Amino acid sequence: MDTRTWLYRQLDPEAWQQAGLSPINRLLVAMIIIATLLAIIETEPLLTRGRDHWFTLAQLLFGCVFLAEYLGRLWSLGAAPAPPTVAAQRWRFVRSAGGVIDLIVIIATFLPFIAPNVAAFRLLRLVRIVGLARLGRLSLAMRSVGEAIHSRRYELAVTAGLAAMLLVLGASALYWLEGHLQPDKFGSIPRALWWAVITMTTIGYGDVYPITAAGRLVASMVAICGIGLIAMPTGILAAAFSDAMQRNRERLEVSADGEGS
Amino acid sequence: MDTRTWLYRQLDPEAWQQAGLSPINRLLVAMIIIATLLAIIETEPLLTRGRDHWFTLAQLLFGCVFLAEYLGRLWSLGAAPAPPTVAAQRWRFVRSAGGVIDLIVIIATFLPFIAPNVAAFRLLRLVRIVGLARLGRLSLAMRSVGEAIHSRRYELAVTAGLAAMLLVLGASALYWLEGHLQPDKFGSIPRALWWAVITMTTIGYGDVYPITAAGRLVASMVAICGIGLIAMPTGILAAAFSDAMQRNRERLEVSADGEGS
Amino acid sequence: MDTRTWLYRQLDPEAWQQAGLSPINRLLVAMIIIATLLAIIETEPLLTRGRDHWFTLAQLLFGCVFLAEYLGRLWSLGAAPAPPTVAAQRWRFVRSAGGVIDLIVIIATFLPFIAPNVAAFRLLRLVRIVGLARLGRLSLAMRSVGEAIHSRRYELAVTAGLAAMLLVLGASALYWLEGHLQPDKFGSIPRALWWAVITMTTIGYGDVYPITAAGRLVASMVAICGIGLIAMPTGILAAAFSDAMQRNRERLEVSADGEGS
Amino acid sequence: MDTRTWLYRQLDPEAWQQAGLSPINRLLVAMIIIATLLAIIETEPLLTRGRDHWFTLAQLLFGCVFLAEYLGRLWSLGAAPAPPTVAAQRWRFVRSAGGVIDLIVIIATFLPFIAPNVAAFRLLRLVRIVGLARLGRLSLAMRSVGEAIHSRRYELAVTAGLAAMLLVLGASALYWLEGHLQPDKFGSIPRALWWAVITMTTIGYGDVYPITAAGRLVASMVAICGIGLIAMPTGILAAAFSDAMQRNRERLEVSADGEGS
Repeated sequence: MDTRTWLYRQLDPEAWQQAGLSPINRLLVAMIIIATLLAIIETEPLLTRGRDHWFTLAQLLFGCVFLAEYLGRLWSLGAAPAPPTVAAQRWRFVRSAGGVIDLIVIIATFLPFIAPNVAAFRLLRLVRIVGLARLGRLSLAMRSVGEAIHSRRYELAVTAGLAAMLLVLGASALYWLEGHLQPDKFGSIPRALWWAVITMTTIGYGDVYPITAAGRLVASMVAICGIGLIAMPTGILAAAFSDAMQRNRERLEVSADGEGS
Repeated sequence: MDTRTWLYRQLDPEAWQQAGLSPINRLLVAMIIIATLLAIIETEPLLTRGRDHWFTLAQLLFGCVFLAEYLGRLWSLGAAPAPPTVAAQRWRFVRSAGGVIDLIVIIATFLPFIAPNVAAFRLLRLVRIVGLARLGRLSLAMRSVGEAIHSRRYELAVTAGLAAMLLVLGASALYWLEGHLQPDKFGSIPRALWWAVITMTTIGYGDVYPITAAGRLVASMVAICGIGLIAMPTGILAAAFSDAMQRNRERLEVSADGEGS
Repeated sequence: MDTRTWLYRQLDPEAWQQAGLSPINRLLVAMIIIATLLAIIETEPLLTRGRDHWFTLAQLLFGCVFLAEYLGRLWSLGAAPAPPTVAAQRWRFVRSAGGVIDLIVIIATFLPFIAPNVAAFRLLRLVRIVGLARLGRLSLAMRSVGEAIHSRRYELAVTAGLAAMLLVLGASALYWLEGHLQPDKFGSIPRALWWAVITMTTIGYGDVYPITAAGRLVASMVAICGIGLIAMPTGILAAAFSDAMQRNRERLEVSADGEGS
Repeated sequence: MDTRTWLYRQLDPEAWQQAGLSPINRLLVAMIIIATLLAIIETEPLLTRGRDHWFTLAQLLFGCVFLAEYLGRLWSLGAAPAPPTVAAQRWRFVRSAGGVIDLIVIIATFLPFIAPNVAAFRLLRLVRIVGLARLGRLSLAMRSVGEAIHSRRYELAVTAGLAAMLLVLGASALYWLEGHLQPDKFGSIPRALWWAVITMTTIGYGDVYPITAAGRLVASMVAICGIGLIAMPTGILAAAFSDAMQRNRERLEVSADGEGS
């Protein structure tokens, strides 16, 4: 097995023939996590003061690693078994979601050194964390969670629709009842919607709340319905996960019966 | 097929013989959503300033569309296959919940142009969003969600009853313990009920909270019971959804067995 | 059937031979709800001002109704089919939880007219709402909810134990980390426990919250564990309800099979 | 049966041959709870003022009890049936998590009497509450809860990963949108993470919240996703508990069938 094939099997999670992630991909996942943590810490002046050059160095290092990974992926695709030409394979990777994210992240890592004012782009590096989702291709758990949610997408959509309707009606009611009393908080339906979202998700910051008896009555009803907003998708997901597990078990039993007879 | 029959099949979701919604109904659903979004945005002065005439125009346009839909529905009922006379069919539509809502929405759309002071009526247009519920007639998901909730209505009622009792007892306890200390917040049971609802739904705005040790002890107990208030209906709904799915699967198995033998 | 037997069957939910509640019990349930609502409203000065005598009258009326019910129950027990003497039956009723509550409520209703300073006792009338629990004897739903909770009492106790441990450890950590900074909020573990309860139940009033980085880190961990505190009992209850339903269904299938063969 | 064997069976929950906990272990559990409650109360100056010597006495007493238990455990291990030498058994206990915690607690109880400045160590006594987990060895419920969580650890990890990603992305978005407006609240991603955790767990203290329209839009999306963060693990756990119960039931049925045929 030549180096290119070895690298291809190391980098492409689907080409890796053993269980779990390949050692190089594991290393990359670890580096993505560390780079993300560094990008988080980097924004806190209390932690970076006087240590700016270390962060710059770490950033350069990670930039080089991810650039090497990108080039390595492109090169190793020459060993891919798929029918089209190597150029087509590479172009497909460059166009893919993963490829585009990789490129943006690499550019966002090196750009601030040239044009310091684009530091805000450094944040895009966080998008790289989505690269972790590639772990999912391996993970049976991620697929089973995804399938369970997918199998109940219509029920979840109905719940979301009811929730959206309740949000709009609740916000409208509060706008109508308290819009003239607290104009900066309920003075328009979009403003009241902020209150409605924070109430129905049971967060309740306390920056906006009704002050009249009528407003509180409506808010209480919205709050109680908000429990349904949490209970219904939870119940639907619970049933979906339960169903998926049982189907798996029955499949196992059927195959066990087949072997037994 | 004449125009009337075509329109009838387009407008009545039950007369549409293919899967999903008819093209015209899809268009109407989209227009209801857009009209609702406009009605929401319209109330925000920061967004409408200087663009009032555009909103007026859009409102007139939507008013005409919904008027045309209403008249179209009435006219197309002449092609309905149901036995009674066309007049009876039309009267039944006018009397139905959907028909009444449609009419109110149309009036609420045009009225503000004649009497500007009734602008508050524009809010009634939001009731039109309930018209979206007609989608439900098509949706298997909505029916299955509804059936699951309906099949457990007694259990949910018991939970609601327990929650109501806990609300009243918790509010009474805080009224008794802190009513004299924070008279504007716990000075009467109705006032304390506002605290109880916001606490038991775990929203916790922070506008009202106990300040004595005894009040906090009782509030802690109410808070912990409040988790039960969320956990119990969620659990009941989860079981109901799970049950509904399994019954569906068994029905499919039975019919598959019937075909197999 | 004489009047006494008729009254006995009307008043004792278990002696009523038809489905649901007897007409007189339905009336009593309605009166308990109305009396409770009145007792709630009565405490709000904005609603009662200038209408005190109406509330006094209503209170007297309900007092008489509940007194009549109590005496009626005692008298009608003479028609009970149970073996012991009528006196023993009556004494058993007077000693029972329902009988004691009834008596307290009646006394609490009339007492304030003699000694106005004991108005606080009026609150005890709310205990009467527990009388609604008698509905539960009829309700299959209440029993099934109760059985489901009972069948999982050990799992729920384990969850409660873990939650209690987390509460104490979280409160101790915050006391240790922020006790000297916010002495009135985290200055002792009992004070910090108020914060821990309000955080773990996800209420979050906002009267107490950590202000240091270390305190926020610990609070974040407590908050994330708090989700488990909600998710675990919900999951356990969902499984319990699901299990109870399935067992019921299997029982029905077994009896149907028995009939079929 | 000599005293040592009797004590061994009393102290080691696994050696106790009857159901539940042995009388001495029950007493110890009660004493741990009381000692913990005392340690909690002890920190509240309003409760301890003028009663310091009582608390000191109680502390000494509990210290002696737990020391006696520790020595008793060491001595009674001589009656353990396991093959290695008594010294090895004792050393294994001293090294075990339970043994280390016991020793720390005992030292933390007596140390403050010698060096009063190490009062903070008294808090370590709370770690002793973990000793309650030993109850779990007996409890079928604790094991079944643990097994259910363990069987779904990958799905729960996927949920945790998604939640972590959402936390970081949400915090980054708010840092970008409001970092310059509220520098002390959103001025860095670590600061914004505090907001993100408190929002996604639906606690919502109200010390930090977005004030711009864009910030509120992003916060609303984070809040709605936060419901998923609660709904998904709840659903997974519900399915896991349901699955575990059903498997138990089937096992029972299989054994019943085996007996029947």
